[in-house]
Amino acid sequence: MKKAIILLSGGLDSSVTAYIAQHNGYHLSALSFLYGQQHDKEIQSAKKIASLLSIQDHVFFQLDLSQFGGSSLLKNSEQSISSPNHVSDIGKAIPDTYVPGRNTIFLSIALAFAETRNADAIFTGVTAMDYSGYPDCRPEYITAFQQLANLATKKTVTGNKIQIETPLIHLNKAEIITKGAKLHVPFEHTWSCYSGREKACGQCESCQLRLQGFHKSHIPDPLLYEILPKWYHP
Amino acid sequence: MKKAIILLSGGLDSSVTAYIAQHNGYHLSALSFLYGQQHDKEIQSAKKIASLLSIQDHVFFQLDLSQFGGSSLLKNSEQSISSPNHVSDIGKAIPDTYVPGRNTIFLSIALAFAETRNADAIFTGVTAMDYSGYPDCRPEYITAFQQLANLATKKTVTGNKIQIETPLIHLNKAEIITKGAKLHVPFEHTWSCYSGREKACGQCESCQLRLQGFHKSHIPDPLLYEILPKWYHP
Repeated sequence: MKKAIILLSGGLDSSVTAYIAQHNGYHLSALSFLYGQQHDKEIQSAKKIASLLSIQDHVFFQLDLSQFGGSSLLKNSEQSISSPNHVSDIGKAIPDTYVPGRNTIFLSIALAFAETRNADAIFTGVTAMDYSGYPDCRPEYITAFQQLANLATKKTVTGNKIQIETPLIHLNKAEIITKGAKLHVPFEHTWSCYSGREKACGQCESCQLRLQGFHKSHIPDPLLYEILPKWYHP
Repeated sequence: MKKAIILLSGGLDSSVTAYIAQHNGYHLSALSFLYGQQHDKEIQSAKKIASLLSIQDHVFFQLDLSQFGGSSLLKNSEQSISSPNHVSDIGKAIPDTYVPGRNTIFLSIALAFAETRNADAIFTGVTAMDYSGYPDCRPEYITAFQQLANLATKKTVTGNKIQIETPLIHLNKAEIITKGAKLHVPFEHTWSCYSGREKACGQCESCQLRLQGFHKSHIPDPLLYEILPKWYHP
């Protein structure tokens, strides 16, 4: 059976990616990061999704990116998280929630994990469509990481490659949600909101991108929100 | 003043690289890793070298690669570290001390650090000459990482690049030692041995490569050894 690592944050995109990977016949090991986020709501979601997919091998990897600073998403940040004035403003500039080096670090650790598990692939839910303009989500970035991975491991010296799989990279949020719905992804157990309160805020960039996706796909988001934007009619 | 990150393990190569970087006019921030090694002798050396170079900004980054396993160098390993029968056997196969993904992870975290410090370069002491055959020390690997770094950061989106500097990559160990001696690197404060005992063992792969370098450069190694190989006459 083919083996793969799934980078599972507990957000909507990584959860849909996990369901796609399993649907495609991969036996999955999951990797989630405690990297100095302000809350652990996503991690709770990651645990739930992994358990629903019967993933036995789930590593929660700790590393503290907040000691470098540079992002409003990290604990002890001097900046607070900005919310976009309007959903159409998203992606025009790199927002303060960008965490320097995050995807590169996560993919590198996934590569180490993949090598020790003798995995054939790493699945990641990065998308370059309805996204925040982070540089490390672009297709050319993923291509460069693949080229690095082809040289970086003992496995590749012996002739085997670890494939970086990004099934969502060219999909917009509505398409991701439609795909997820077909695979019965339990959206109510995925967490996208930058805040760690009981209900999702409905106003941060990540909530707005998510709600816009549900709105456009005409699928209702089962998650509970504090405030829904006026334009949201799924 | 130009700024750079130095990946400082406390070994001979990274210490010489730190002296080269400072000699070349860079203001340095140092990055050392507690990654699940069996001992902290190298880290003590890294502290000493950073202090001798008056580096104020020194981050000790914790992450536990031993949870993945796959290397005799990590704590809780089921394998013990093999020693080569002869120094000429080194590099013929990838040894059990290889840590999957290590350089990729370290460079990725250095990239994040460099971005938050607005650094121009990352210095690393990797060498592809007298080395253990690890895949992530080869020049083509470093080239691939540079291409990734050129796409990975906010800094690169704005047009600035973070340069990966590998001044030792084409030098053999004797040449590294000769260069270090010219820059007055305090070799007695650098640690190469895979064991964490009071004196270096003189027999592991890392000790043998180091001693061969001192032997060939006709410079005496000031470090104390338990047993010196018969062929060692500096």
